[in-house]
Amino acid sequence: MQSLIPAGGDDDGAPRPRHYAGAVALRIRIDLSYDGTGFAGWAAQPGLRTVEGELSAALTTLLRPSDGVRLVVAGRTDAGVHARGQVAHVDVDPGAWERLRGRSHGTAEGAAATRLRGILPGDIAVRRVLRAPAGFDARFSALRRRYLYRLWDDPGLVDPLRRHDTVLVRGPLDVAAMDTAAAGLVGLHDFAAFCRRRDGATTVRTLMSFGWSRGEDQTIEVTVAADAFCHNMVRALVGSIVPVGTGRLGVEAPRAVLDGGRRDPRVKVMPAHGLCLEEVVYPPDEQLAERAEQARVRRTLPG
Amino acid sequence: MQSLIPAGGDDDGAPRPRHYAGAVALRIRIDLSYDGTGFAGWAAQPGLRTVEGELSAALTTLLRPSDGVRLVVAGRTDAGVHARGQVAHVDVDPGAWERLRGRSHGTAEGAAATRLRGILPGDIAVRRVLRAPAGFDARFSALRRRYLYRLWDDPGLVDPLRRHDTVLVRGPLDVAAMDTAAAGLVGLHDFAAFCRRRDGATTVRTLMSFGWSRGEDQTIEVTVAADAFCHNMVRALVGSIVPVGTGRLGVEAPRAVLDGGRRDPRVKVMPAHGLCLEEVVYPPDEQLAERAEQARVRRTLPG
Repeated sequence: MQSLIPAGGDDDGAPRPRHYAGAVALRIRIDLSYDGTGFAGWAAQPGLRTVEGELSAALTTLLRPSDGVRLVVAGRTDAGVHARGQVAHVDVDPGAWERLRGRSHGTAEGAAATRLRGILPGDIAVRRVLRAPAGFDARFSALRRRYLYRLWDDPGLVDPLRRHDTVLVRGPLDVAAMDTAAAGLVGLHDFAAFCRRRDGATTVRTLMSFGWSRGEDQTIEVTVAADAFCHNMVRALVGSIVPVGTGRLGVEAPRAVLDGGRRDPRVKVMPAHGLCLEEVVYPPDEQLAERAEQARVRRTLPG
Repeated sequence: MQSLIPAGGDDDGAPRPRHYAGAVALRIRIDLSYDGTGFAGWAAQPGLRTVEGELSAALTTLLRPSDGVRLVVAGRTDAGVHARGQVAHVDVDPGAWERLRGRSHGTAEGAAATRLRGILPGDIAVRRVLRAPAGFDARFSALRRRYLYRLWDDPGLVDPLRRHDTVLVRGPLDVAAMDTAAAGLVGLHDFAAFCRRRDGATTVRTLMSFGWSRGEDQTIEVTVAADAFCHNMVRALVGSIVPVGTGRLGVEAPRAVLDGGRRDPRVKVMPAHGLCLEEVVYPPDEQLAERAEQARVRRTLPG
């Protein structure tokens, strides 16, 4: 049983179960949304307001753990990036968790969700709190992350209510051409051209979908899904396609950048506030542990 | 020609054309959107930040008129209410207007839109600027105003990016029952039960549509359209229906309130921030002046 509860947070370390008064920790899954405008990103940083910092503080108020709170998250969003479908996990003292139920009716999870909503600021919302199934790891069990990027290509389209999650660019943009160019990047590739280089880290990813469309209100919506993303990758992918929409680059240009295999200074990293983590997809419960094992292995291209 | 250019702003007064150096004023139509969060409503008020105040100041910067700027608007939104499809008009000095074109290429209207966007704060967006057709009056020529009200009926639905334009209520709400109850209010009625009483003002209105539906993301969207609304009417209409959704009141109750004919203290006026003016509809150009004449007449019920 213990090996099914990896200690999150360490990038490649072996799972180390936490214990509370001799009992194995209880793993809790938290689904949350946030408006990234007022945060210096997900990851806790001294002196900065971060989502992890706020959520850790709220859990500490709720559970008063003797040894702090360690959150593991599916997508470590950058400063200004939003989330509607973020997933995190935290290992808690089973005794403290059961006492949440004691103070209310219903489940401990329901009581935790209600109390976290009361503690957290308005720019973070708890969608649900669940007891995680065996083998679940918010980061390593994930099969797929899906992001949305929103663009206006005409100042007449600007809706001030969406100015915090939509980016205005010079247009008009040819959405059909951009969709064609984006399709050329889908698949298993080394995305080094779209990643900030980090020693020892792979840049091999499977881009599962990369679609461009114009909504009824003329906003351009970009859907990007992959098994995982390296730092800045979604915003660089979107930035590689926009010049195709203006006609400055041909439909084949983004694929040539990919094949070049190195960070291309001509690819503009798009602003953070147009980006939102929409969904994290996990396999069926019985495959969670196996998936986490696979995801810990450094990816390389076959052959 | 002069009689086709009524001077807006006076509720029931006869049209009085403005003149600039002997020339009849040019009437300009401005379509705009705003995030109502930071405004004390549309109407200019001393010492308060209002949409009219900001737009008047921007037009003054643009045109430097000797006698100020008088805006007329289709929907005088309350504090906190948003707009995606607001329409205003302003009468300007034709000479000053033509000089806008001189400084740029394209039309004076295009130049005005670009310059207003540069002057206005981020919570107001100019969608377009047009030379108004003869007989156009932003307020009195309008045939229909359409509003949207957004509700969540479960705290798990809250999306912090939409917290400024969506209201969380206790649920779950039965949307089909609410839609049925709302349909019972559609038509030509005296809506005194949903209006703040004002001496001499009619409360007779034609409610053209009042529909409730749940979107893909489970947000409840309420569409309300009428020829015109009295003060607080949309928020009171929505507030009369919500108790039907919870089962506290029957489907027939809102109609009984309407038929009661007087402001009912049991009808809660919903919070402002869930409300957005989506669209103002005008007749074809050749019917604009006639429509304005009709709308100036005090409405009464037939018989």
